[in-house]
Formats: sequence, C-alpha cells, structure tokens
Amino acid sequence: MQRVNWDSHRAERTGIAEAVYCPGKSAGVLIEILEHHLKAATSVLLTRLDRQVYDGFADSYKAQMEYHEQGNIAIFNKKDKALRDSEICIVTAGSSDLRLACEAQVTLKYYGYNTPVIADVGVAGLHRLLNRLDEIKKYKLVIAIAGMEGALFSVLAGLISAPVIALPSSVGYGVSENGQAALSSALSACAPGILTVNIDNAFGAATAAIKICQQFLQSE
Amino acid sequence: MQRVNWDSHRAERTGIAEAVYCPGKSAGVLIEILEHHLKAATSVLLTRLDRQVYDGFADSYKAQMEYHEQGNIAIFNKKDKALRDSEICIVTAGSSDLRLACEAQVTLKYYGYNTPVIADVGVAGLHRLLNRLDEIKKYKLVIAIAGMEGALFSVLAGLISAPVIALPSSVGYGVSENGQAALSSALSACAPGILTVNIDNAFGAATAAIKICQQFLQSE
Amino acid sequence: MQRVNWDSHRAERTGIAEAVYCPGKSAGVLIEILEHHLKAATSVLLTRLDRQVYDGFADSYKAQMEYHEQGNIAIFNKKDKALRDSEICIVTAGSSDLRLACEAQVTLKYYGYNTPVIADVGVAGLHRLLNRLDEIKKYKLVIAIAGMEGALFSVLAGLISAPVIALPSSVGYGVSENGQAALSSALSACAPGILTVNIDNAFGAATAAIKICQQFLQSE
Amino acid sequence: MQRVNWDSHRAERTGIAEAVYCPGKSAGVLIEILEHHLKAATSVLLTRLDRQVYDGFADSYKAQMEYHEQGNIAIFNKKDKALRDSEICIVTAGSSDLRLACEAQVTLKYYGYNTPVIADVGVAGLHRLLNRLDEIKKYKLVIAIAGMEGALFSVLAGLISAPVIALPSSVGYGVSENGQAALSSALSACAPGILTVNIDNAFGAATAAIKICQQFLQSE
Amino acid sequence: MQRVNWDSHRAERTGIAEAVYCPGKSAGVLIEILEHHLKAATSVLLTRLDRQVYDGFADSYKAQMEYHEQGNIAIFNKKDKALRDSEICIVTAGSSDLRLACEAQVTLKYYGYNTPVIADVGVAGLHRLLNRLDEIKKYKLVIAIAGMEGALFSVLAGLISAPVIALPSSVGYGVSENGQAALSSALSACAPGILTVNIDNAFGAATAAIKICQQFLQSE
Amino acid sequence: MQRVNWDSHRAERTGIAEAVYCPGKSAGVLIEILEHHLKAATSVLLTRLDRQVYDGFADSYKAQMEYHEQGNIAIFNKKDKALRDSEICIVTAGSSDLRLACEAQVTLKYYGYNTPVIADVGVAGLHRLLNRLDEIKKYKLVIAIAGMEGALFSVLAGLISAPVIALPSSVGYGVSENGQAALSSALSACAPGILTVNIDNAFGAATAAIKICQQFLQSE
Amino acid sequence: MQRVNWDSHRAERTGIAEAVYCPGKSAGVLIEILEHHLKAATSVLLTRLDRQVYDGFADSYKAQMEYHEQGNIAIFNKKDKALRDSEICIVTAGSSDLRLACEAQVTLKYYGYNTPVIADVGVAGLHRLLNRLDEIKKYKLVIAIAGMEGALFSVLAGLISAPVIALPSSVGYGVSENGQAALSSALSACAPGILTVNIDNAFGAATAAIKICQQFLQSE
Amino acid sequence: MQRVNWDSHRAERTGIAEAVYCPGKSAGVLIEILEHHLKAATSVLLTRLDRQVYDGFADSYKAQMEYHEQGNIAIFNKKDKALRDSEICIVTAGSSDLRLACEAQVTLKYYGYNTPVIADVGVAGLHRLLNRLDEIKKYKLVIAIAGMEGALFSVLAGLISAPVIALPSSVGYGVSENGQAALSSALSACAPGILTVNIDNAFGAATAAIKICQQFLQSE
Repeated sequence: MQRVNWDSHRAERTGIAEAVYCPGKSAGVLIEILEHHLKAATSVLLTRLDRQVYDGFADSYKAQMEYHEQGNIAIFNKKDKALRDSEICIVTAGSSDLRLACEAQVTLKYYGYNTPVIADVGVAGLHRLLNRLDEIKKYKLVIAIAGMEGALFSVLAGLISAPVIALPSSVGYGVSENGQAALSSALSACAPGILTVNIDNAFGAATAAIKICQQFLQSE
Repeated sequence: MQRVNWDSHRAERTGIAEAVYCPGKSAGVLIEILEHHLKAATSVLLTRLDRQVYDGFADSYKAQMEYHEQGNIAIFNKKDKALRDSEICIVTAGSSDLRLACEAQVTLKYYGYNTPVIADVGVAGLHRLLNRLDEIKKYKLVIAIAGMEGALFSVLAGLISAPVIALPSSVGYGVSENGQAALSSALSACAPGILTVNIDNAFGAATAAIKICQQFLQSE
Repeated sequence: MQRVNWDSHRAERTGIAEAVYCPGKSAGVLIEILEHHLKAATSVLLTRLDRQVYDGFADSYKAQMEYHEQGNIAIFNKKDKALRDSEICIVTAGSSDLRLACEAQVTLKYYGYNTPVIADVGVAGLHRLLNRLDEIKKYKLVIAIAGMEGALFSVLAGLISAPVIALPSSVGYGVSENGQAALSSALSACAPGILTVNIDNAFGAATAAIKICQQFLQSE
Repeated sequence: MQRVNWDSHRAERTGIAEAVYCPGKSAGVLIEILEHHLKAATSVLLTRLDRQVYDGFADSYKAQMEYHEQGNIAIFNKKDKALRDSEICIVTAGSSDLRLACEAQVTLKYYGYNTPVIADVGVAGLHRLLNRLDEIKKYKLVIAIAGMEGALFSVLAGLISAPVIALPSSVGYGVSENGQAALSSALSACAPGILTVNIDNAFGAATAAIKICQQFLQSE
Repeated sequence: MQRVNWDSHRAERTGIAEAVYCPGKSAGVLIEILEHHLKAATSVLLTRLDRQVYDGFADSYKAQMEYHEQGNIAIFNKKDKALRDSEICIVTAGSSDLRLACEAQVTLKYYGYNTPVIADVGVAGLHRLLNRLDEIKKYKLVIAIAGMEGALFSVLAGLISAPVIALPSSVGYGVSENGQAALSSALSACAPGILTVNIDNAFGAATAAIKICQQFLQSE
Repeated sequence: MQRVNWDSHRAERTGIAEAVYCPGKSAGVLIEILEHHLKAATSVLLTRLDRQVYDGFADSYKAQMEYHEQGNIAIFNKKDKALRDSEICIVTAGSSDLRLACEAQVTLKYYGYNTPVIADVGVAGLHRLLNRLDEIKKYKLVIAIAGMEGALFSVLAGLISAPVIALPSSVGYGVSENGQAALSSALSACAPGILTVNIDNAFGAATAAIKICQQFLQSE
Repeated sequence: MQRVNWDSHRAERTGIAEAVYCPGKSAGVLIEILEHHLKAATSVLLTRLDRQVYDGFADSYKAQMEYHEQGNIAIFNKKDKALRDSEICIVTAGSSDLRLACEAQVTLKYYGYNTPVIADVGVAGLHRLLNRLDEIKKYKLVIAIAGMEGALFSVLAGLISAPVIALPSSVGYGVSENGQAALSSALSACAPGILTVNIDNAFGAATAAIKICQQFLQSE
Repeated sequence: MQRVNWDSHRAERTGIAEAVYCPGKSAGVLIEILEHHLKAATSVLLTRLDRQVYDGFADSYKAQMEYHEQGNIAIFNKKDKALRDSEICIVTAGSSDLRLACEAQVTLKYYGYNTPVIADVGVAGLHRLLNRLDEIKKYKLVIAIAGMEGALFSVLAGLISAPVIALPSSVGYGVSENGQAALSSALSACAPGILTVNIDNAFGAATAAIKICQQFLQSE
C-alpha cells in the first residue's frame, strides 16, 4: 500500500508547496518523505517537529536539516540563498509568543523572505506598542501574535493601514485555556481589517502572507 | 402559600437592599411586591423591567415609578434627595452599550451617587480613549462596558490606577454572540486590576462599586 | 451626555472609515449619526440595517440612502462616482449565501470597487466550481462564502494561487447551527492561504480585502 | 462477584460478535476474557489495545494474538482463513489517518474481508482524489477518514454513487482539536449519502459496513 | 448575476438529484428554481418548506406541488408512479418524532420507495419495541428516530442484524435541548452498526438509505 | 399508521403511569390521546401544556381538565379523591421558580400527595432559609428549586438529613442562561446527598420523589 | 494558620460524616487529617486516593487503612463490625465501570451496608439485563453506572419500580469523552424516576442512597 | 532581536508593577529577566513558577529568591521591609484551595500587606463559616476562593458588607472540571457585591484588591 501521495504540483497551483505536518505520522512515514525529497533533490518544510522526533532522525538526515527548536520547525534539503527584505513584519504581545514568531519567521525564510519580529508589545503597557508604531507602519502586512485576551489585534488594527493577520496563541488558563479567548477576540474585533487563522497556526499565517505578497507584488 | 419572602434586613447586613429582578415573575407577584413597599413606605429598585410589563401596571403604581426605558429599570416609591458626586465613572466602548450604562447609572442614583458616563471610547479608535483619559483618571473606580471582543478592559486597566469593573455587554454575533467573547476577554486580560461581572449585569457592577465606596469611604 | 464619539480620522489612519453597526443602537442614536454626516457632508455605511428600522426613517433620510435589503446594508449621503474594476471576486457555495455576498459587494462599492459575485458553486457538485475556475483565477483575492460544513474553503484554496478570505455563513442546523461548523472548517483547513473572519462578517471580509488592495496596489 | 457477563449470542443476533474495548479494563479483567475465549475455543477482537498493555501479556497469550500496533488492535485465537475481496474500500485524507485505516482494515479482516486502503487523497490537492476516482468507484461502499476540517467527506460524496461512511479523525489542533471540526463537517455536509460515526471509531465504521454487506449481499 | 447554478448531473453522478433546502432562500430564488423545473419538465424535492412560505406560492405552482405539512416537505412537478415496497423501515421513539418520519417517508417516496413507519416505540416502555421486533426484523435497513436521550439507537442496534441509521430529533430541553443529547448517544452507542446523521436531517437519512439500496440492490 | 403506542402497563411496572409531554405533538395526536383516555375511563397528566394549546381544546375536553397555567400542566379525566399528607416538601430559591414548584406540586397531587411549597428562601438572605429550617426538617425528602448560581442546593443539603432532589431552574442570563450554572452547581455540590434532574424537569423531580415514597413507605 | 476546619457535627446534622476528597491536598494536610482522627479515635473515608499517594503514607498510617485500589478509596481507623444487608444494589453497564462500583460499595460498607454489584449488563446485549431483572427487582433502590451513551439508565428505569440513581462514568472517547454523553443521557432520559449525580461521583451516589435509607427506614 | 520589552513605568501608571508569568517562557528569557532586575536593582514577582523550573535556576539566583512552593510563586531581589496590616482577608472553601490562598498572600506581601487566611469554611458545613463571620467582618474587602460548585461566594456576599472578590479554583471533576462550575456560580450569584477573576487567577485577585486599597486609602 502506498502510504504517501505526493502533491507535487501544489506550488505551481497555489504558490505554496506541500509541507509536512509531523504529528500523528509514524517514523516510517517521515523517513519515506525525507527519502523522497532527497531522491527528487527537492526541499521541504517540516512543521510541529518535536525535539524528540528530531533527535530520533539519523545523522545523515539531520545534516540536511536546519532545525529551529523554538519553533518546532525544520527546513530540509534546501540550499541557502539570499533573502529579500520582507513587506511583512511579525508582532508579538508577549515573550511567551516567540515560539510562534519563530515558526512564522522560518516559514517565511523558506520562501525567501527576511522578516523582522517586534516582540513583547502587548497592550497592558500600551506605550510599548506606540513606541514601535512607526517601525510597524513601514510594512504592508502585519502578522500579530497574542494569547490570553488577544486585545493586541483590535488595538493594532485601529492604528495602522496594513491588514493584520491575527494569530491566536495557546497561552493562557481558565477561560483563555488553549487560546480560545484570543481566537474569539480576533474574530470579533471591532476594528476592520483583521483576518484570523487557527490557534497556533503560525505556518498558516505565514503562508497566507506569502500568497498575498506573491499575488500582489511578484505578478507585477 | 406565601409567594414572596422579604429579606428586609439585607441593606443593614450588606449595604445593598433587595432589588426585584423582574423576568419570570408573574404580574401577581410583582403587584404583591409593589404593595408591600407602598404599605411599608419603603422604596425598591426594579431591574429588567420590559416596557410592556411597565405599561401593564396601573397608573397608581406608575405614579410612584421613575422608569428609564433605555436601561429597563425603575425606581419605585423613592423620594428624591440630593445626590453626592460619585467617585465612580462609567465608560462605554460603543453607543450600543448605553442601555447598560443607563442601568448602572440609575442603580447608582438610587443609592445617592451622581455618576458620569463617558461613552463610545472603544479602542478601535484609540485616540477617543486617550482624549478622555485625564477625565477618567479623576475617578477612584471605573465601570467599563464593552461587547464584541472587549479589548477596552485591558487597554484601560493598563493606563490608569483605578481598579476596573468589567461589564461585558451582549453586543455581537458569531463567536461574540451574547457577550461571550467580551466576558472571556475581561476574565483573561493581562493587565492586573480587572474585576468582572456577568454579561449584562449592570446592576451587579453598580452595587459592587457602591459596596466598595461604602466600605472604604463612608466608614471613615 | 455625549452619546456618540466620532472617530473622524479612522480613514486616514487605517484606510477604512468608521461604519455604523446598527443593532442595539436606539433610533435616537441613529438619527444623531445621520444628522452628523449630513452636516459634515460626509458619507457613511450602515450595516445590519433591518428592513423595519430602515422603514422607520423619515423620507428625508431615505432620500439620501441607497438601501440593499438583501444585504441589510445602506450607503448614506454618498455621491455616485465611477467604480474601478476589482482585483477581488466573491464566490458563494449556495444561493442562501447571497445575503452576505450582497453585504460584501455593497461595502466594496462604497470604496469604489466593482466586484463580481460567482454564486452557488459549492463542492457537493464539484464541476460547478471547476467550470468557473478560470474565471476565478483572474482575480488576485477571493472572498469565499459558505455555510453548512464549509468545504468550499479548502477545495478552493487548494486550486488557486490567490489568498482566500473565508466568510462562514450562518446557514445550517444541528451541529452547523449558526455557522459554527463552517467557521471551524475555515480555521482548520489543510490548504494554506486561508484567512478567516467571524461568522456572517461580510463587512469585515470586504474591508480586509480593501486594506490589502490599498496597501499593495494604491501605494505603488 | 462475576465481573464479565458474556453476550455470547451477539453475533447471531446482530451479525457482529462482542469485541473487547480495552481502556479502563484492569489486567485481571482482560486475562479473564482471554481465558474465556481460549476455553471456549472462540476468537475475539481487542480494540484500543495500547502497545504497553500488549507488552504486558504473557507470551502464551501473545502467541495467539495477531497484534497490529499501528491500529492498536489485535485478533485473538483466530485461525487464518481465506479472505473474500471486499465491496468496501477505505480512503484517507492524510497519512496521519493511517492508524484508523489500519483499525478498520483489521476489523474487516476479522470478518473475512480483504479491503484496500487508498491513502492520502485529501482535497487540498484535489487531483490526488480525482486521480483515484475510477478506482474508488469500483466499490459499493466507502469508509472515508479525515481529520482537520474534514472536507473530504462532502467532496467525495458529491462525486460517487456509493454511500460514504465518514470517520472523523482526531488529527488537528485549535478548533479542530480532537477531531471536533471533522465531526461537524461530516454531520453537516451538503452532499447527501454521508453517514457518520464517532471520532476515531474505526471499529464502528467497519462493523457498520459489514452489517450492510451481510444484510444486502449474504442474504441473497 | 446568475443566482442559481444547476447541478443537473448530480443524479447520474451520485444517484440522488439536487434537492432544494429552502431556509435562507429568497422568494425570488425559489420561484426561479420552480420555473427552471417547469421548463425542463423535471421534478424536484423542496425540504424545510414552512407552511407560510408554501402558502405564499401562486396557485399555479401549488397545483404541481404535493405538500406534506407535517414534514415541511414538498414534491414538485412529479408524475405519480407506482412505488416499490421498501427494504427500509422507519422507527420512531415518540409521537413527537413523526415530523421527521414524514420527511424521510416523503423523500423515500420521491425515489419510488413505499416505506412503513413504526411509531412511538421508545425504550421507556421496552415491550413496545419488543412487540414490534419481528416486524422490524423483516427490513434490511432501519432509520431510527429519537430525541431526548436517544437510548433507542443502542437498544435497537443490539437486537437486530440490520444496520441502523440514527436520526437524532430536536425534541428535548435542558441538556437535551435541540437534540444534542440524542446526537451524542447515537455517536457513542456501544452497539456496533449505528450510523448517524445530523440532528433533524431526515432528508439525509433517507437519501443515504436510498444510496445503500441503489448500490446493493439495483446494480444486481 | 398508528401514531401513538400506549404503554398501558407502565404504572404497574414502574409505579408511574405514562404522562403526555405536549411539545412537538400535533393537535391531532393530542386529541387521539385524550379520546383514548375518555374511552378507557383512565386519567392522564399533560405536561408543558402551553396556555394557547389548552385554549385550543374543545370545551368538552376542557370540562374534564384541571389546568394549572402557572405550571403549564393539566390533570385530565381524574376523579378528585382525598390527598394524603406528603413526606415531601418543595423549597424554592426565588419567586421566579414558582412555575416549577406548581408543576411538581400538581404532579404530586395527581398521585395523591398533598405537598407544601416553601417559597423564596434563596441563600442571598440566608436567614430566610434558616427561619424555615425547622419546618423543612419535618419532611423525609426535599425537592429544591433554584436558578442563577443554584447555591441553595449545597447549603440546604449541608443542613438537613433528608436527601435533596435538586431541580435547576432556567432563570438567569449570561453564564447562567437557561439554567446551565444552576445545573452545574447541583451536580458538583460538595455536600453529599444531592440528586439532580434536568433543567426545568419538575415532572421528573416529582415522579422520582413518588417512586422513593412508594418503594420505601407503601411496601411496608 | 489553621489549614483544616473540622465539620465534626456533619454526621449528626446530615447523616453523613465529612469525608476527605484527596486531590489537591498536600501531604502535610492529609497527615494532619489522619492524626486528627487517630487522636479523636474517629474513623474517616478517603476518596480519590491514588495508589502513589497511598504508597507515600508511613506504615503506621497504612496499618489503620483498608485501601481498595480498584476504587481509589480507603477506610481509615474504623473497627470492623457486622454489615446489614442492603436495600440497595449496584448495576454496571460494562466491566470498565467496576472502579466506580467499588468506590460506591466501599462507601456503603463504611456506613454498614453490604451491597451487591451486578456487573456488565449494558443494553447492547439486552438479554444480559433482562436475565438479571428479577434479582434487581428485589432491591428498593438501584445505583446504575454507565459510560459511553448511558442508555442503561432509561431502559432500567422503564422496567423497575425502584428509583434509579444514575452515575455517569467517564468511559468513552470523541463525543462521549469524559462521560459527557452518559451524563446528558441520564439527565434527559424519558423514563421517570431517574436521579443523577456528577460524572464519576460514586461517593455522591452512595451517600445519597444512604440518606434515603436512613430517612425512610431507620426512622421507623 | 530583543525578546523582552520592559514596561518599566507600569507601577507609576497603574499602581502595580509588571510581574512575570512564567509558563511558555524559555529558560533563556527567564534568566534575561532576572539579570535585568539584578542590574537595575529592582525586584520582581514570578508567578506560576513550577518547582522544577525553580530548581533549574543557578544558586546565585535562588539566593535572591523567596520561593513559596505551595503557591508556585517567588519574590525576587526584594529587601524585606515591615508589612502593614491588611484591610483584606482571604477566605477559602476547602483545604485544596490553599495553593491559591498562598499565591494571593505572597502577592499581597510583595506590596507590603500582611493578610490573614481563614481556611476551609465551605458552606457544606455552614457553621464553619458562621463561626468565623465576626472575624471576617473586620475586613473591608474579602478574597473568597472556592472550587466545585462555588456556593461560598453567594452565601458570604449575602452576609457581609465588604465586597467579595470571587476567585474560582480549578478543584473538581465532571461538570466542575477545571473550575468551570465555580466560575459560573461566581458570575451568576444572586447576592450583589461579587466581583470575579479568572479561574486560578490568584495574582489577579490580589492585585485588584491592592488597587482598591491604594485608590481609596493611600490617597487620603
């Protein structure tokens, strides 16, 4: 039985190549995927790759892997090439959100974008955000990451003309357990121009941002 | 069978007299309550009193009733007396929250407080809030009302030293239907000093504020 | 007491002017808003404006109002001007979603975009979508509307390079009551490049699309 | 006290013999069950049998057990006999769903059906499904397995005349955590002819399929 | 703009023609659909057709409509033809479930099946079910309808060899409000061989049953 | 088709005769039930019988009906006979709970018990409960009714030796909407000896109480 | 600071002495409780006492403890005395529910009742229940334990005149995860005479049963 | 990239300095924070600091840390100074709530308040609370902690004139799992004067209490 069915043309079709979401995949399936890419001389992004799964790979695989533990993400079999400066910036409400910032940043890097992270500017200390506003305003698109009550999304969207991709983070407890309150805030924010992805879906936020840039900029 | 059991000493015990929550009470029970207060020459607050229930009362009852339709609330059988200026102010995120501001304001009035409402300062237009900040800072206690994503609670609490009583408003749809998102935001806000009441519980927000004032100010 | 607090500079700040979300606003507040715009000679968009509230307006107000009953939306006090052809298209899964398509289309019109609607291409009859694919591919950005299980979002995003703004529609019953299943599908779709707004938030989908266009196209 | 109460006639009554759902059963109870079947010279299926519980069995029991770790399922004390080709096929959206495909396949094998698995044909890459459609159409009944947003169910049911047994898989995070979004999609799909089982209930999907085949085919 | 997109080949593709789910469709859209079928001389099933919407149709349309108020369902423009006796029976737990039995029965009739309803055999009075068991056992497939706690599904599936299509009914209050408890019972029943459809989805239960019959019987 | 299936022996089997839960039953079905009891010269209890459904009955039926509007309940075709004093008392937290007290009291009356109601003794005014404690302690069994946060259940159960049947009432808003908070309190109360029924299930609370009395007292 | 506050008179007041719910209590608090009872020469029941917490106790404490690992429950410092035969029996749907049967049985033993357990009579094999019905009918009160869909509660209550205390068990997955479906079934069962306790609250079911027996039997 | 963004002026702005919520922060980030405070010679509060994270700190850091394991909280780099007697008292329903009482007490200590804890006065044994009532009444403000059904909040608020800050505790199982039932009770309590914080948010309860005291007392 064939266990994996390559969607080889996804990049041509949609602009984004198929990535590997690791949870639930057996070691055998993961190796099959890596071997496929080695043979095809293609690269691939591995998301939600826990440290212990990474550690279990043979050294020959690790040698081709750029692993970012903070973001549980790896780039496999890709040649380094120069990055272009991004039209996108990543903003986080707290330092607990850096794991998602890392996952988004590495995804963007895989597609050739060099993207800055402006960290820990949550609205409980509003001036932290206001102080960085001029910097944020230089970008055409903002990925905002927040857990708890997710108030950053509305406040930011009310201050800038860039659209905001809201990425709720599973930081919190009680009613904000698992990012539920932040997700609700993102979806129900009063300020227009907020677009939301699933809780902790940093890969999704980054690839949506890339699709926007590809559509509007590279087709010029 | 006795249908109503007077808690006549609640004011002495807790500082707040028993009020009448009207939904689910039959017309007969409501009349029995009004008659009781007429005979005892005592006043009472009626909350969640819909226009059509109010309209159904005999004129003799209405004559003793100060009814505020916007807030669905009435003061019954109370002599007017001078109000003291409040240490409390009421802040609303939108103009749809004025119905709750009214309910809170009338409750405070019943207890002798003259309380200002600073309306429509939601964070989608942050300057609206910042413009009124000096005024808000004059008060020792703030009742903040917001629906939708309820981002006002965190932002405000991060800017002032007064504690914030967060009153989530059932304004919204989809994931913020019935005030759920605003409640979650209030409870999970990062900024310390936020205390929450149930969705639409303007009476509860006002009476808690009164108890704080009574405890800390009137016992001096 | 001032009941409404104008956020007059929102358009300059964010590219999107303040619109009026009508539910929960009293007739008095709505009139105050209309008068403000008449005096200022500015236009405004009114969303979630039910037929019966519209009918209650005086004729002098209606004369300045372009009301679209299907989408419960009105443009107030705006001079007609030529529309530019949109980089955006609107796609609906069913004919029950046309009310949201209308709300989005009118919002886009208010900002000067002439936007086509490709209706009733849900995936239960996949060829309906495939037949229209070449047409859809001409646009840089797609607003997709679906209720029930919302399978359109993933399928579409897997076929085109344009980013998809997923707008879940409150069409359904049982577990898809109020659009919950469609929202979950949008947020958890496997295909990258999907960005989600709240259930029935057609205004939000349209304004986010406009912000993207303004950022990436008009600043050129 | 008798701890286990044999439902020995279930196979005659319903066509499906009693299986053993292992979670929550103590080692003592499990051994009692195995001994019963050894003595009665009957076979039994053990579902949700974790590797570590399996490892804890004495070798004498393991010798009679065909254990499939991928599917956490074992066939106990059954003589091999020839399998008939199945009228059923199993289709999975992703390679993370293979654990459920295995559980269903082994259950079908226990009842004498040789059933193919067509893996990793999720709709994010629609052609993967369309490429296999002719093959799928050869079967009278399809068990479809999908996690995340579960869009496969509707798309497949709209393309084939076989009824689809939708088996939601607990693959996902955020709003699709634990298979909730996939379950909602299965239940609210627009395409008619979809029948749903509980999340991860591969045994239930397989036995329902068997009952259909037994009713409609073997009674001929 | 074309508002309705005909999926004319659905019957050939899947065995079930496109039906019209009426809620959310404007009168204009419904008339457009009826006219289409009149012109094409084809018939169509209209589900969730409320009495008042039906009453609003012109007499010329009603003349071609076989409306069943109990089931909120109508057959439009179909010539009567002889029905075959069904391999399916419909079983209801209570007399409040007859509305769904009617919707399923009319759907089956539209496809040429004459299907009996065995009503009011809920398990609170177990003998009511046991008394009818021999009759139920004559059928190859059972559609079982239950609200409240939905215990009928498990009990029935444990007694017969026919697969059971469980149709949860939105009869109940408190924790069983809107059919939630019955749906949970259907999905988590211990007895194997239960397949579930969405709450109140009588059309879905009937069409799935028809697809099973078409696949297994008519292809003989 | 037979629409109603009499469970004539339920009283012998379980001690409680079949009652008629009216919602969802058509007028035709209700009349069929009444006629059945007239012919059989048996009585029956009708629960959740709304005023307007009652008003729709012909006078000949009403003549045999003892209708209690407060509790939406009617006794049909029953000869009055002397009542025995009950071992049960009914306690309510508020006057809004009297509708459920009435439903329980009439159910108990139908079975021959004369049962007192002690109303409006909620714990916000604890002395109201303590004042009536000696009276409550005279009964062997207590049905306690409370909405909102349902604190009465724990407090009462901690004070008396009678078991408490907790009946959560759908009085409340926000998080206690529809009785959810009261139900949770009843189920999770620290004080032992609390048994819970569904929200608003006054009939269930009363019949469970009757079964306890019948088992333990009448079999002596 | 005094950490534990003895409710020494609870047994006199309510018939049930204070028991110790172990989760969340530190080792220090637990030892303080045991020492208190050793000094006072009183006994106490410890519930939810995990094996590893039990193992951590000094041998001198264990010597006074009758620990039942299956039910996570211990009797501390109690002299054995003769048990009376119970008017109560315990019935379980599956063998996975034996842990709760054990907890209830030990609680009843602590109060002097010798109570039988009739295990594994779930309704998927209805005859298993019917075979034991005569035995069950000998008891005045039944504690029924079921997980998954909890259909046992209704079926049993429809067959016997004893009231049924429904104890939902956290056995299940998907929609019945953590006992939610079984709880819903218990609360919404059609058969009258069912009283419910919280999921897994075997102690609560047993003590409520004891209070009923004490009230109705021992006061004779 | 700067990972942490100091909100150095939060204390001046709001009266409460920024504290460190440890979960989700990497060891590197935590060390960066501690070093910052050592260099600035400022103190900081660390909340949700698990034993194992604490154990991982170098001894040089631990030397400056007052760690309270019961409350998972530490005071870092603060000189001891005399405490003032608090106007606040902390009341707990059970001994399992002492972990939250500790967290609140240490937070209050950090701000200079010496605050008593009155433990284990839950309402299942009402006299335990009544016995301590005179003591509780001496304080102007009460932080009440309860899990399970949270009935303490209403009862206490109905007995005293001090406002009650309700802190729901994640003690419970089944429907009170994770503190949900206690939170609902706090929010929906009938007794006025209750203000709620998120489940387990002892830090939030304490800082809100401090803000009230600072506003009303220190500004005198």
